[in-house]
Amino acid sequence: MSNENTSYTQLRKLMREAGTLGSVNALLAWDQETYMPSGGADARAEQRSMIATMVHERRTSARVGELIVACEHDASLPEIERSNVREMRRDYDLLTKLPASLVGEIASTATKAQEAWKDAREKSDFATFRPWLEKMMELARQKASCYGTPAGGEPYDALLEEYEPGARAAELQQVFTPLASELSALIAKIGASGKTDRLAIKPPSIDASKQHAFGQFLLKSMGFDLNAGRLDTTAHPFCEGLGPGDTRLTTRYREDEFGGAMYGTLHEMGHGLYEQGLPKLERYGEPLGEAISLGIHESQSRMWENLVGRSRAFWTWAQPHASKTMSAWFAAQSVDALYSMSNVVKPSFIRVEADEATYNLHILLRFTLERALLKGDLSVAELPGAWNSMFEKLFGLRVPDDRRGCLQDVHWSCALIGYFPTYSLGNLYAAQFFETARAAMPDLDERFARGDFAPLLGWLCTNIHQHGRRYRAGELCERVTGKKLDSGALLRYLKGKAAEVYGV
Amino acid sequence: MSNENTSYTQLRKLMREAGTLGSVNALLAWDQETYMPSGGADARAEQRSMIATMVHERRTSARVGELIVACEHDASLPEIERSNVREMRRDYDLLTKLPASLVGEIASTATKAQEAWKDAREKSDFATFRPWLEKMMELARQKASCYGTPAGGEPYDALLEEYEPGARAAELQQVFTPLASELSALIAKIGASGKTDRLAIKPPSIDASKQHAFGQFLLKSMGFDLNAGRLDTTAHPFCEGLGPGDTRLTTRYREDEFGGAMYGTLHEMGHGLYEQGLPKLERYGEPLGEAISLGIHESQSRMWENLVGRSRAFWTWAQPHASKTMSAWFAAQSVDALYSMSNVVKPSFIRVEADEATYNLHILLRFTLERALLKGDLSVAELPGAWNSMFEKLFGLRVPDDRRGCLQDVHWSCALIGYFPTYSLGNLYAAQFFETARAAMPDLDERFARGDFAPLLGWLCTNIHQHGRRYRAGELCERVTGKKLDSGALLRYLKGKAAEVYGV
Repeated sequence: MSNENTSYTQLRKLMREAGTLGSVNALLAWDQETYMPSGGADARAEQRSMIATMVHERRTSARVGELIVACEHDASLPEIERSNVREMRRDYDLLTKLPASLVGEIASTATKAQEAWKDAREKSDFATFRPWLEKMMELARQKASCYGTPAGGEPYDALLEEYEPGARAAELQQVFTPLASELSALIAKIGASGKTDRLAIKPPSIDASKQHAFGQFLLKSMGFDLNAGRLDTTAHPFCEGLGPGDTRLTTRYREDEFGGAMYGTLHEMGHGLYEQGLPKLERYGEPLGEAISLGIHESQSRMWENLVGRSRAFWTWAQPHASKTMSAWFAAQSVDALYSMSNVVKPSFIRVEADEATYNLHILLRFTLERALLKGDLSVAELPGAWNSMFEKLFGLRVPDDRRGCLQDVHWSCALIGYFPTYSLGNLYAAQFFETARAAMPDLDERFARGDFAPLLGWLCTNIHQHGRRYRAGELCERVTGKKLDSGALLRYLKGKAAEVYGV
Repeated sequence: MSNENTSYTQLRKLMREAGTLGSVNALLAWDQETYMPSGGADARAEQRSMIATMVHERRTSARVGELIVACEHDASLPEIERSNVREMRRDYDLLTKLPASLVGEIASTATKAQEAWKDAREKSDFATFRPWLEKMMELARQKASCYGTPAGGEPYDALLEEYEPGARAAELQQVFTPLASELSALIAKIGASGKTDRLAIKPPSIDASKQHAFGQFLLKSMGFDLNAGRLDTTAHPFCEGLGPGDTRLTTRYREDEFGGAMYGTLHEMGHGLYEQGLPKLERYGEPLGEAISLGIHESQSRMWENLVGRSRAFWTWAQPHASKTMSAWFAAQSVDALYSMSNVVKPSFIRVEADEATYNLHILLRFTLERALLKGDLSVAELPGAWNSMFEKLFGLRVPDDRRGCLQDVHWSCALIGYFPTYSLGNLYAAQFFETARAAMPDLDERFARGDFAPLLGWLCTNIHQHGRRYRAGELCERVTGKKLDSGALLRYLKGKAAEVYGV
């Protein structure tokens, strides 16, 4: 490692350069969503396309390929560096396996399919979207075939590789199916309790500037380093890691509904804490400086949003601060009322508006259907019928139209097939990690109630963040929690909360 | 031109790519001054250095050099395109004439010299800065020698090329010297009138948010396209053209002194209107899409700040709006009082705080001294004495210490020798252009008083902005105003104002 001319040192240098160039594109993207005047859109597209092409060329160069081969044969590399090389190989293969013609066809079809989808959704007219979805499915099959199906797997597994390296559809199904059937039963019990409307108290109107000040207070109190990041406002909240020391979050404010912005901020903060915890200074652009997968990333956002932010302990601590910064209304509520209002469970048609418990049913539905579509077990023409019948089985509700059914999400129109499962993986990993953290630190709730979130953040850094992509998600889960991912922890957590809030 | 494979078409394409890459660096710089968290500084330096190197490589490539030669021999190019090639040649030569070792030495010396300067200025200790200034002067001489002295000129002319292509020190001196002697006399008369303290009324304290709202109102009313630009807050105000459709201004607010932010906004708006008026859509990255020189750029900022913004007509229009948006105090003043307070003339030691009239004396002083330093007619050791004696002659004031004397400006510590004259060139060009515009549109003041600034902006676009670098500054001045630059228009303007405001 001290020899500056080893293949490995050269490879790391090339990776860092590509990473730095990639971080420039991240700023171009962030600025486009936050402050760019609309007149700059065309020039921005030109800038982003130019930088993206340069990043792609650097990451897929023949030189990088040769250096990876040389490193794979270098027996002197320590294990941690070998894991770095293993992930570089994975990235290189993924990036070089797709012919440019297919990448181009997917991109241009997606642009048109998104337009068609917007229009179809607005008119709730599946027929006009159908040919586009058929085309996208065909392109997804071609993509899966270029990537190659893993041994013993199915084409869907190949698509999963982009988002959740190492995940397998059959294994996901084994976790999701029991989760869904138990959740369906739990949600039915909650509905039967008849308490939902009473618990869903209506908050007062709160100025966006006060909500923003409270968001900043939460970030600071919970460990997000505002000297190495910031919070802005955008139409669609996101977290963007712009490089070492610069992680940016966004949220959006609705004056009559503070919860949207507050939980949105906690969600993006969870992503941001992960980004801030990655060893970027030393490892920028290398797999060891990057997040493992979308599922693990989502586990961090869901943990801070839900397992921490929707806990009674959180409200015990946050209530007086919310009262001081946002509205005296908070002081007039009991902690129990605030806790309950943050944990209302109510089946609804739209995924992005779903609560913590029903959310996973939305995912199971999409995962099951897109897997069947890809396999060819389900035709695109049959999709609305299959969606509606499965929805009724899971939620006990009849879908009134495709706008609130199979046309609601943008993902399929932009070729994101295999992406949905990562949302539920986030919930599952979050619960299993959190249960382990709580076992290691039994006073976690008492600490939260005092505003002390450092032990949890420290635990996450030590066990998850600092490793970058050293371990795959499944392996990390076993190392940290002592067992494979299953639905146990999430179900225990959701059932415990249902018992506290709903008495069921 | 329709042939896609001509050398000229290829050259334009390469220029646009380099320009687009350069605009990415402009965003990195803008973000660094506005929203970047401090923790991102190291990564930002890495990003900027990487992009700057790539831009430099593209603009100085052998291929670009070959294509320029081919275009210079292409007799079929229309005149306007030949001017484009002429300016590409100039840029290429400037960029390739300096050896990388000298560029590196200047950059690293400047970094250290700036630190030494900050320290010396704080302690008013010229002795510790002296060796650094000697070194910077020596490097400036080397730079001038690499560029080469123009025929019949002096080394200072070579340095001027970077900022004001085609300008010559001897010609500048011929304009500046009579300007300075007449101004000195005018300023002495103004001082003798004894009216300054009475005219300098103190405005009330005004919230930054109200000042910002008024600034936005001015921008919109005066023709700055806020769909293709924006206004933010920074420690040091600037204007940054980020590419076609995206021009960003900044200002800073002091609650007890609205004039600083307001005139700062009008100044940057002047730069911004020029950026928005350049034909960037078609010509981005080419000389024909760029500003001519610092002096011409400054003429646009000074015109909107001073000749428009400090006019009685401006206040006639602005008063009720300022009253509505900022403070009822404005409605309680007479237009004459607002006009006078915006045109107070008072000699002072610090250039950046100087009024419109005394400002040019500050510049003459610096220009004279740095020219003598470069020539070797003045040694660095003699600088404080020469500064103080010339200052007293020009301003009638004794310099109390070097902090308020020859140590006040950052320029010399960062190798910006030859830059100062462009500030006064801005004032001179502004006055000469404005006098011409007024002759062409005799009702300009009546229009300003009604809030109609479009005729002036249209005139500037037609006569100046749209041409990019088609003409050099001196040539443009003759084409637009019918004569070479001289001090007549500026003196007539300043004397006229002194008569109105001070009755002298």
